[in-house]
Amino acid sequence: MAINVTFIGSGNVATHLALALHNRGCQISEIWSRDYSHAQLLAGRVGAKPTDQLASLDKTADVYILAVSDDAIFDMALDLRLGNALVLHTSGATSMEVLKPISKRYGVLWSPQTFVRDVALEYETLPFCIEGCDARTEKDIESLIGQVSNHIYHTDREQRQYLHLSAVFVNNFANALYGVAQNICNTHNIPFEVLYTLIATTTQRVKWGDIRYQMTGPAVRNDTKTLDAHRRLLANDPDFLSLYNELTKIIQERIKF
Amino acid sequence: MAINVTFIGSGNVATHLALALHNRGCQISEIWSRDYSHAQLLAGRVGAKPTDQLASLDKTADVYILAVSDDAIFDMALDLRLGNALVLHTSGATSMEVLKPISKRYGVLWSPQTFVRDVALEYETLPFCIEGCDARTEKDIESLIGQVSNHIYHTDREQRQYLHLSAVFVNNFANALYGVAQNICNTHNIPFEVLYTLIATTTQRVKWGDIRYQMTGPAVRNDTKTLDAHRRLLANDPDFLSLYNELTKIIQERIKF
Repeated sequence: MAINVTFIGSGNVATHLALALHNRGCQISEIWSRDYSHAQLLAGRVGAKPTDQLASLDKTADVYILAVSDDAIFDMALDLRLGNALVLHTSGATSMEVLKPISKRYGVLWSPQTFVRDVALEYETLPFCIEGCDARTEKDIESLIGQVSNHIYHTDREQRQYLHLSAVFVNNFANALYGVAQNICNTHNIPFEVLYTLIATTTQRVKWGDIRYQMTGPAVRNDTKTLDAHRRLLANDPDFLSLYNELTKIIQERIKF
Repeated sequence: MAINVTFIGSGNVATHLALALHNRGCQISEIWSRDYSHAQLLAGRVGAKPTDQLASLDKTADVYILAVSDDAIFDMALDLRLGNALVLHTSGATSMEVLKPISKRYGVLWSPQTFVRDVALEYETLPFCIEGCDARTEKDIESLIGQVSNHIYHTDREQRQYLHLSAVFVNNFANALYGVAQNICNTHNIPFEVLYTLIATTTQRVKWGDIRYQMTGPAVRNDTKTLDAHRRLLANDPDFLSLYNELTKIIQERIKF
């Protein structure tokens, strides 16, 4: 018999997960959102019942996925009581014990990915980090998400926190560097697209192994002539100059052999 | 008649450029390297004559490409005299006027890319930044490299310098962030591969336009709870903590709307 899954939340993560599970034959029972029209929108895409009433939620689903903000998870835990159902949150930063008041069987289903509502993802290769309150629960989470992806990692609380932190470095912070480069290009009438292939090849090479062996450029060579030339170019922008120096220092002291 | 090209240098850039031009029907005349065996290796791949004697270089080629280190370009300019041949260097950081003593017709042919000798590149999409000492010379450089790629940009000295600086941000510095994340993952027994899809999707989204609109994560949301949690995780690593704070500040003050 198909597994019944209810989603608490209808945002980016809920949308992607509900669609992925629906496409693999899961029965999506209900979609709850504070905003009924949002619940309706997602519910319509996965054949579920929309609701904005947490108190009158159908309690007979097999799995409840709380795909809401970290703060909202804490709020839910005050009111929601779901007995023996499997209850999961999708947060990288929140402990699973927060869910303890809601059900005896709880855990985490987190993917280190930035979900954008209407941008398709290849779910089969999407990594999922799972954690369950006991071995049987963890097995159940694995079976559930195993229908969507075969990249499943068992990570405990501490590992998940550090992975969340690492994700900020490779995603938000890398994006910030692209933003800095875009800013510099715009200022000097250089089309930023000139850098697209460099960005693409740099990130393909991430899979080659130890990053320290792949470092190139003036910092790792300690090419002071080029470093000084770059610093002169940034002399009028103390923010970017300070970032340039900080990253050069990190490469020279930590990310090289 | 096919254009005759001689390469001064046999490193990563020379290898890729010589192969690309050779494959498009250019005649590669000579390959010079300080190390004869290096010259021989590349010469063998492109049907050229190897040499380690700069003084006895055949002076009848149409184009001479100095694909050597920035310092070596300056050294060459002291000795090399090539009359009316087109002489180019391939450096992002060096002015074209350095080549003035060598020939009347000089310029720059620089690609913002990290060339690795035996890793194939799609040359057709590779960007080339060109600059010539006059309009006719610039046209000749464009014809030459137009055989290899149709992504040609005319950039003056200042633009090329700022592009070189921007390339350090998107390549070396992004790599440094991957190195930091890899270090954190290794320390906590997390397979770094968990982050591969996040890295790939992040960089694909670079093409969506203004990076500031695409920023996500705790810094741009000013989610102080998560920022503080991350800072606690980094409390024992002052280098990484300082970098975390610097990048958070850059996002909050510069890379957002």
